[in-house]
Amino acid sequence: MIKGGYSPVPFTDVRVAGPFWRERLEVVLSRSIPSQHAKLAEVGILGSLKLPKPVPPLTIPRNAHGFTMQVFWDSDVGKWIEAAGYALALRRDPDIEAKIDAIVDDLAKAQSPDGYLNCWYNGREPENRWTNLRDNHELYNAGHLLEGAIAYFRATGRRRLLDILERYIDHIEATFGTGPGQKRGYPGHQEIELALVKLYRLTGDRRRLDLAAYFIDQRGREPRYFTEEALARGDDPGAYWAKTYEYNQSHMPVREQTRIVGHAVRGMYMASAMADLAFELDDASLKKTCETLWRDVTTTQMYVTAGLGPEESNEGFTRPYDLPNETAYAETCASVALAFWAHRMLHLELDGRYADVMELALYNGALSGLSRDGTHYFYANPLESRGQHRRWAWHICPCCTMNVSRLVASIGGYAISRSDDGVAFHLYGGFETTFSIGGANVSLRESGTYPWSGDVRIEVDPEAPAQFALKLRIPGWAEGTEAAVNGEPVSLAPKCGYATINRLWSPGDVVTLRLPMPTKRLYAHPNVRMNIGRVALRRGPLIYCLEEADNPGGPVQTLALPRVAPVDANWRDDLFGGVMTLTAEGKRLLPGDDAGRLYSTTPPAAQDVTLTAVPYHLWANREPGSMQVWAAEAIE
Amino acid sequence: MIKGGYSPVPFTDVRVAGPFWRERLEVVLSRSIPSQHAKLAEVGILGSLKLPKPVPPLTIPRNAHGFTMQVFWDSDVGKWIEAAGYALALRRDPDIEAKIDAIVDDLAKAQSPDGYLNCWYNGREPENRWTNLRDNHELYNAGHLLEGAIAYFRATGRRRLLDILERYIDHIEATFGTGPGQKRGYPGHQEIELALVKLYRLTGDRRRLDLAAYFIDQRGREPRYFTEEALARGDDPGAYWAKTYEYNQSHMPVREQTRIVGHAVRGMYMASAMADLAFELDDASLKKTCETLWRDVTTTQMYVTAGLGPEESNEGFTRPYDLPNETAYAETCASVALAFWAHRMLHLELDGRYADVMELALYNGALSGLSRDGTHYFYANPLESRGQHRRWAWHICPCCTMNVSRLVASIGGYAISRSDDGVAFHLYGGFETTFSIGGANVSLRESGTYPWSGDVRIEVDPEAPAQFALKLRIPGWAEGTEAAVNGEPVSLAPKCGYATINRLWSPGDVVTLRLPMPTKRLYAHPNVRMNIGRVALRRGPLIYCLEEADNPGGPVQTLALPRVAPVDANWRDDLFGGVMTLTAEGKRLLPGDDAGRLYSTTPPAAQDVTLTAVPYHLWANREPGSMQVWAAEAIE
Repeated sequence: MIKGGYSPVPFTDVRVAGPFWRERLEVVLSRSIPSQHAKLAEVGILGSLKLPKPVPPLTIPRNAHGFTMQVFWDSDVGKWIEAAGYALALRRDPDIEAKIDAIVDDLAKAQSPDGYLNCWYNGREPENRWTNLRDNHELYNAGHLLEGAIAYFRATGRRRLLDILERYIDHIEATFGTGPGQKRGYPGHQEIELALVKLYRLTGDRRRLDLAAYFIDQRGREPRYFTEEALARGDDPGAYWAKTYEYNQSHMPVREQTRIVGHAVRGMYMASAMADLAFELDDASLKKTCETLWRDVTTTQMYVTAGLGPEESNEGFTRPYDLPNETAYAETCASVALAFWAHRMLHLELDGRYADVMELALYNGALSGLSRDGTHYFYANPLESRGQHRRWAWHICPCCTMNVSRLVASIGGYAISRSDDGVAFHLYGGFETTFSIGGANVSLRESGTYPWSGDVRIEVDPEAPAQFALKLRIPGWAEGTEAAVNGEPVSLAPKCGYATINRLWSPGDVVTLRLPMPTKRLYAHPNVRMNIGRVALRRGPLIYCLEEADNPGGPVQTLALPRVAPVDANWRDDLFGGVMTLTAEGKRLLPGDDAGRLYSTTPPAAQDVTLTAVPYHLWANREPGSMQVWAAEAIE
Repeated sequence: MIKGGYSPVPFTDVRVAGPFWRERLEVVLSRSIPSQHAKLAEVGILGSLKLPKPVPPLTIPRNAHGFTMQVFWDSDVGKWIEAAGYALALRRDPDIEAKIDAIVDDLAKAQSPDGYLNCWYNGREPENRWTNLRDNHELYNAGHLLEGAIAYFRATGRRRLLDILERYIDHIEATFGTGPGQKRGYPGHQEIELALVKLYRLTGDRRRLDLAAYFIDQRGREPRYFTEEALARGDDPGAYWAKTYEYNQSHMPVREQTRIVGHAVRGMYMASAMADLAFELDDASLKKTCETLWRDVTTTQMYVTAGLGPEESNEGFTRPYDLPNETAYAETCASVALAFWAHRMLHLELDGRYADVMELALYNGALSGLSRDGTHYFYANPLESRGQHRRWAWHICPCCTMNVSRLVASIGGYAISRSDDGVAFHLYGGFETTFSIGGANVSLRESGTYPWSGDVRIEVDPEAPAQFALKLRIPGWAEGTEAAVNGEPVSLAPKCGYATINRLWSPGDVVTLRLPMPTKRLYAHPNVRMNIGRVALRRGPLIYCLEEADNPGGPVQTLALPRVAPVDANWRDDLFGGVMTLTAEGKRLLPGDDAGRLYSTTPPAAQDVTLTAVPYHLWANREPGSMQVWAAEAIE
């Protein structure tokens, strides 16, 4: 038995009441999701669902990568429906529902009699379906549409889209597999595996789980499917634009992989699906592979913000410890998907290591992709800028926009888990739920101003006294945590990052938890050569950065933080609707007396200056300027 | 009168006797030049001079930049002849001369009846000559062939190649200009301007100087020639692959330019030609433009090695203070050309600032392009490596190979200058010359082990007592210089980097100069964000680097130099045939107790370790490994 015994409490059963996530959630519900629909219409993605009849002659403007942008448009539609579905689960909205139903009309018309459904292929080159899994995203699109269908069904009970997608999945199941006449293919961009597990959990139809397991286990086997498929098309497999099957993690069978390589989002979706399958199939070997990959990525390839993938050319990984700051790709989607994976690992084993990374990704690398106003985005999330970076209102590949909105819309689902005899809090910040244990309903009301403060209060309110274990995550960064029940200190002996209070709970019980939240200096492993002599600041789960808006007078790269300078946390009501800033007496490096010289035998002069840092996820929401996460340490 | 009054003593009148340059010169003469001829033959460049008759149908494998590599092959031939010509001026060699004469035979056959000479166009598409000056290097090739012809004529007195080139220049002169029926064109890659000034100096034919001045002054004028030329070809001028005319410095008239932009080698050749023209034409406005550009490049855009151009995509400049180390392009040719320019600026104004940069380029950014064995090269000269950089035996664009060999073969020409009443030493290290002043022959014999030691001895040996000024460069890095004449201390009051000893010199007079050469720490201007918290080491004119070969135990990026650690110079007979190394008690940064973690709240542990640095130009001559010029400063 490898399951941790805990299952997530779905976000629909968790009320997000705390100020931090409530604000982000409101912005996503009221601004991001509606504006994303408008953008999908404006740029022609919704229009692409209305197929031309008859199909016009084939003229495809393929780009250097051999595909057009449009081949993944279905996925953007699916991801938007998923985010909107989550929003509807929290708050019904006839206008949004009408918009989704209109999309469903188009999809119904676009679907082939045999169930196949891909608007690019059905509208342009129906004869070429399933001929280029490597590049053309058909299975990826199916996965996202399926996730959208499941979310919309769960929110509204309307199953027309789900029916369409189940027919499509039936078709996919008939097409792919190891049986006679079947193609031994698998996705070029992993994603459908996750969606199939969700469908299995919704319907209990075991075939969906088996198909997901097939895609994972077939991946990377000899003979290599993408090679055979290229030959069948008449293409030279050696002319693969990405140069290596590491790009999509099909360079070797999945269970043999020990390092995370290639495209970061594909890798994270694959790892998430593997964790799902390890859970559902009680598959110890798959769990072990997940653990090996987890160790690799978190100890050698992860930015301090939980950003993943330093390199633009493959949107992915390079070498251990290669984590350049200014050119960091660190795609928003990759951090979102890291949160997915971490959440799944946590349910294979209730270990705070996973929760720590999940929280790091949520508050930093993922959240930085969404602007304060909810309508501007980062695709790449560098850790340093000269001021050249701007949030954009849309992107030619808009995957990140809907990824961050579906994450935030379902944020409550990452906070709490249940077992037969317990409940576990992974996140704090105002999450509330009601659950039933031993026949009694128990209301849990967690409150506080986390992540600004580590003071957490949990009101435990059973209808009648009830015995259960309350597991509280003690973050890896917290030292000297104290707790009390009804004012009486309790001694905590956290194991694997969770403290357990197992007692007979009575109505009105109150647990208080005090997670000390001093600002900490972080140092990178010295093999991260870019960060030698540099320091980052973390307070609680938040990574901070220096922005020029708060530190006028020159590029923030010329600021330095003495190793011994105290760093103070200062609440600022006037900034970002309230934010904890960090300040320290630091230095501004200035040219010496020989001011005009490029090189000097005297070190730069150091002028005393107050440094102000703000949470990384908030950067680039004000006037453009320089930014830096890893500041120089002053030499005195 | 803007001329400095000094003219270079040609390298043919300077004997290179000192150990440092003698060794490099011998290697270039005996190994680089012969092996370069073999490579030119092996890769088909010499074969390309034998034109097919009749001209075959046009099928041109153009690359993404719109040209084939072959369009610049003529220039490689010209540059090799120039380097070989310099070698022959020092030491005749019938074998090399026969090889050059064979090339001249081919060029004679390739030349059109009207004088036009370009092996690519004449052999492939004669009807398209002069239709794409922007990209296709015709004038650039002509310039290099002309420089080769001049060098070969000066060395041997054989004027067949020179005649061929003079006929070609006559044709170019008839083709380009502001007269009726002439094209108002100018080179896409500057170079011919320099060659034309050399031809003027050889022949006194003023038309050559006027043509050079025309090319410089026409450049960047409206209407833009490259735009009109593209339209005439039927091309879209807006589809220019380099995106901006800044790439070849034709974005505005030359005299209006205040910043060095674009392709570094083009910019340096242009600036060198401008300095030549300012000198020959006594043109104060052109001199002023040169000074403005000089200030820009040396105070905001030059690597500490005198490397130029951080960016690969344009082989050139980006923004002030943008000087990344590992990705530095810093093409060898650009540093060679910077030495050219500095040498010319020095003769507009005898100012040590120019000599300092010239020397820096010679000993560092240019010399690093040539391996110890004389047959391997660097095109790009990064200031940091993970060990991925290897010297190559040849390059698809072999410009740098012959550029460094022509520089080293003529190194004596950078050492000494003459005026009517004086002689100036710019370089030290064993340069000897004999000159005539006031009717008397004077022999000058400078000796010492510079750059390893700053102790310089100059024997001044006039046939009969002679009055003249001996000007000795006092490098900008030298502090507390002392000098003596015949053992008697003389007080030096250097002006603009030169100390003057004006006296009646007698046979057997000896001047000794002591340039203290302590190791200095260098710090970059804090706007160079890559080098904040970093330090470089310089001793005399040499920039040093840490190489893994001398510092085993991990990447050199994990080494740190405490600000207060003494740095010692240690002569090593066993290394590189004798070299001054630098050693210091430094630190190796190691992961702390939580060794496996990527980020830690404790700074990396620092282990005491002896750091050993070697001159930058010698890097990558041993087993591959990491390298770094700018080391972290240790924080204690």
